Amino acid sequence: MGEFDLITRYFKRPAKRSPLGVGDDCALLAPAPGMQLAVSSDMLVEGRHFLSTVEPSRLGHKALAVNLSDLAACGAKPLAFTLALALPGVDEHWLEGFSRGLFALADEHGCELVGGDTTRGPLNICITVFGEVPAGSALLRSGARAGDDIWVSGTLGDARLALEVFRGTIALPAEVFAEARMRMEQPTPRVALGQALRGIASSAVDVSDGLVGDLGHILGSSNVGATLDVDAAVGTVAAAGTPDLSVEMLRTCALSGGDDYELVFTASSSARAAVEQAGKRSATRVTRIGRIDAEAGLRIVDASGAPVAQRFGSFDHFV
Amino acid sequence: MGEFDLITRYFKRPAKRSPLGVGDDCALLAPAPGMQLAVSSDMLVEGRHFLSTVEPSRLGHKALAVNLSDLAACGAKPLAFTLALALPGVDEHWLEGFSRGLFALADEHGCELVGGDTTRGPLNICITVFGEVPAGSALLRSGARAGDDIWVSGTLGDARLALEVFRGTIALPAEVFAEARMRMEQPTPRVALGQALRGIASSAVDVSDGLVGDLGHILGSSNVGATLDVDAAVGTVAAAGTPDLSVEMLRTCALSGGDDYELVFTASSSARAAVEQAGKRSATRVTRIGRIDAEAGLRIVDASGAPVAQRFGSFDHFV
Repeated sequence: MGEFDLITRYFKRPAKRSPLGVGDDCALLAPAPGMQLAVSSDMLVEGRHFLSTVEPSRLGHKALAVNLSDLAACGAKPLAFTLALALPGVDEHWLEGFSRGLFALADEHGCELVGGDTTRGPLNICITVFGEVPAGSALLRSGARAGDDIWVSGTLGDARLALEVFRGTIALPAEVFAEARMRMEQPTPRVALGQALRGIASSAVDVSDGLVGDLGHILGSSNVGATLDVDAAVGTVAAAGTPDLSVEMLRTCALSGGDDYELVFTASSSARAAVEQAGKRSATRVTRIGRIDAEAGLRIVDASGAPVAQRFGSFDHFV
Repeated sequence: MGEFDLITRYFKRPAKRSPLGVGDDCALLAPAPGMQLAVSSDMLVEGRHFLSTVEPSRLGHKALAVNLSDLAACGAKPLAFTLALALPGVDEHWLEGFSRGLFALADEHGCELVGGDTTRGPLNICITVFGEVPAGSALLRSGARAGDDIWVSGTLGDARLALEVFRGTIALPAEVFAEARMRMEQPTPRVALGQALRGIASSAVDVSDGLVGDLGHILGSSNVGATLDVDAAVGTVAAAGTPDLSVEMLRTCALSGGDDYELVFTASSSARAAVEQAGKRSATRVTRIGRIDAEAGLRIVDASGAPVAQRFGSFDHFV
């Protein structure tokens, strides 16, 4: 099968809303009047972002999900995406599964594939996603103010717990592992919550490298500090009740786990009811885990307010 | 050096025209009223799209050039791009050169880096480029009509001749090789010509896989055939006058060479003066090399109109 047959068989579908989709030198996008286009790119490399053994349909889901998560963190509504794919060869089983998982999530969000590139090379998946957001209303990292609450969506740490099982450092009961593995392999981008938080959240970021590291982006961009309740964060971990998991492991997974694709965001304490309401409207759990301080730096405390000595890193591809 | 230091040192520059650039979950783009956004993605893999020995600044140039060439083929004006980069490690010499070559070309076209991703992995460069074009005036592959002339910009085949020198199949005089090598390593995207051809060309495509293959995209999308004058195409090859190059080699390089990043386009025969004028306005040579036929298929003839028996393939990553 040649390059263009491959594209036609697995990836070419008629454009619905875009003026021009797959099959020309460029795709054409036309955001609605008054809308800005939000753009984000994420590249996934085998062995770093996914295990070589992952089921291809789950990988197709995840490749788009991590990009949709960036749109969610800006409060943007998904529109379209491009897919650039380096493949070691033509593996029809892989292509069928990957494209099925990819399009299932794309269809769920009305996000259409409009173009891309296919080449031979070490497996690499690069998606650029486009969303629209009313001019001036995107959620940014730079809007947190002293006194704001810090919130997180969904559950933290479960993806990392699943990874630790694959690494052999911990064991989980089968049904707990199955749920954690789904969080690692098929994360849920919080697209509806992101849009519901427009006008409510003062800042937002998605958690991909770990809560502490990604919250750090908000603190740096907003020029503020924070106090984080580690026990509140651990309370969101779905597997938190599992016997034999150490407090240290749970805290590490919740604060430094990575691969969560949850939103961490800030909002004025007067907006608590509005945040809860946004969570309900988008059927997404939201949990208050700390507050923004004027004083720089991140202070990690337990439920009683006592400082926690444990250190928490953040994922970095080059350190 | 960590991932975010690397981004800050080599790739973060303040956004000029985009509402939001590098450093948030998404970049924000706002096309002017009445404009559509043209989008294209290209992925470059070491050993397939470039030799591992290429000078990093030339690679930075080429990575953006091949994307700008897609905008040119649509008649779009460059606005912005995202860069996703997988690197085997942090090589400051490489990063300095790569970013210098990349930004030199970007600045030449007023095209700003607004976001992207950096990860560790086998060297892979994926750029998604954004341009704007007045609604309804993008050059498409589907507009060629029987009787139209076929034109090509610049010079064909020289990049392939340089590759053949690297492969050891031919030799070229030093100064001829130097020029051909520049065509391979630092192609010139025909951005100004593309915009000048809006309203004049009936279809266009950029030549990346070879003239015959890429013209084939116009024929397929437009549901027409063509007659191509191989000698007119060879006449554009800068190195065509070099002694000892066989006619077969020159014809192969001109028609199947690949990596040309020229525009092949069609226009009504009544628009010949307008095409010549567009070439002059954009300081780009344009050469008439054939005509579109109602009859399907591609007929390759020599300057006398006699059919040419030689077969011409097209680059395909998977065949």
